[in-house]
Amino acid sequence: MIYTQNDIAGFDRRYRTNFINSISGFKSANLIGTVDRSGKTNLAVFSSVIHLGSDPASLGFLMRPVSAERHTYANIKETGYFTVNNIHKSIIHQAHQTSARYDKDISEFDACCLTAEITQTICAPYVLESQIKIGCKFIEEHIIQFNGTVFMAGEIMEVILTDTVLMNDGYVDIESAGTVAISGIDGYNDVKNICRFSYAKPEKPLTPF
Amino acid sequence: MIYTQNDIAGFDRRYRTNFINSISGFKSANLIGTVDRSGKTNLAVFSSVIHLGSDPASLGFLMRPVSAERHTYANIKETGYFTVNNIHKSIIHQAHQTSARYDKDISEFDACCLTAEITQTICAPYVLESQIKIGCKFIEEHIIQFNGTVFMAGEIMEVILTDTVLMNDGYVDIESAGTVAISGIDGYNDVKNICRFSYAKPEKPLTPF
Repeated sequence: MIYTQNDIAGFDRRYRTNFINSISGFKSANLIGTVDRSGKTNLAVFSSVIHLGSDPASLGFLMRPVSAERHTYANIKETGYFTVNNIHKSIIHQAHQTSARYDKDISEFDACCLTAEITQTICAPYVLESQIKIGCKFIEEHIIQFNGTVFMAGEIMEVILTDTVLMNDGYVDIESAGTVAISGIDGYNDVKNICRFSYAKPEKPLTPF
Repeated sequence: MIYTQNDIAGFDRRYRTNFINSISGFKSANLIGTVDRSGKTNLAVFSSVIHLGSDPASLGFLMRPVSAERHTYANIKETGYFTVNNIHKSIIHQAHQTSARYDKDISEFDACCLTAEITQTICAPYVLESQIKIGCKFIEEHIIQFNGTVFMAGEIMEVILTDTVLMNDGYVDIESAGTVAISGIDGYNDVKNICRFSYAKPEKPLTPF
């Protein structure tokens, strides 16, 4: 079936949100931890974190249009740091609950039964329960003129993980860490490796491994 | 184990690439189809496509730093359109092979045994074998100063999918479409739904469904 731009614009709002959020494929599942100047912590689920570069190591994520109520954005601009914490199977319930609109004076760590963990490197809080944690320094933002969303970029200052998930070639086996994938706005998914492929070259067959 | 920024900078290049590409979580798996002014088609695997907005419907993806050899970028700038085609289990081999550096005069559709499909709406070619296909009009680009990568945004003009994967509330069941998730630079993964959650509100328990 072909859905035109007019068909999609005519969908009921929630129907369209589900539809458009699903079709781009599976999404990363992370909790972003921040802190404001007074030390109040914030935690929010994000499905838009993507790889930005390996050298220097960096990542990015998309935020909705910024308003005074966007605590994650305000905190990053205030204190300059954020953490990205993989969501694994055992914490999907707590992770999704962070998407509720809590008041600024309530920390989602407390409200959603997750534990803030601080290191010497950055001021933003990690999620103790997460298996793979990334500490980032904010580097730049880009406002998408089309709809006011903001692409935020961060430099990776620190990575915390259990060494049992780290393979000999640097590949981190996020499947064995229990990391989930998000689909749509509210779907959580278990992931199983099919294979990895050798580096692709023209005229050379791929080797799965 | 904690890996500092210095530890990561000191990793062997390929080790670091695997490591940093893995930790941000699972990634969407799509083939981006484009065409140049003379009608030559191009197809390339991307793991960076993300949801941008539902109203108007839009998506974005990150490209490596642009050079003359980046055919996808050059084609989008020339003709203004691109397609995003979900990769499903049966085509992961062909999809990964598109990452080989083919010459500009070779179409990855031919080299990788995938079929170009054209509609009336846009000039860019879809992948016939894909189950979920999105036709986009290029809207804006943002160069990330930190490393020269480019965030490309597109407005969704058309969506083509089999109606059996479309649920009553607009959610597209990409698991049943066989859509895979990518991990690292070369891992392809099968995905199984755990649950969806109700809309989160403070003080209200989530309902899984």
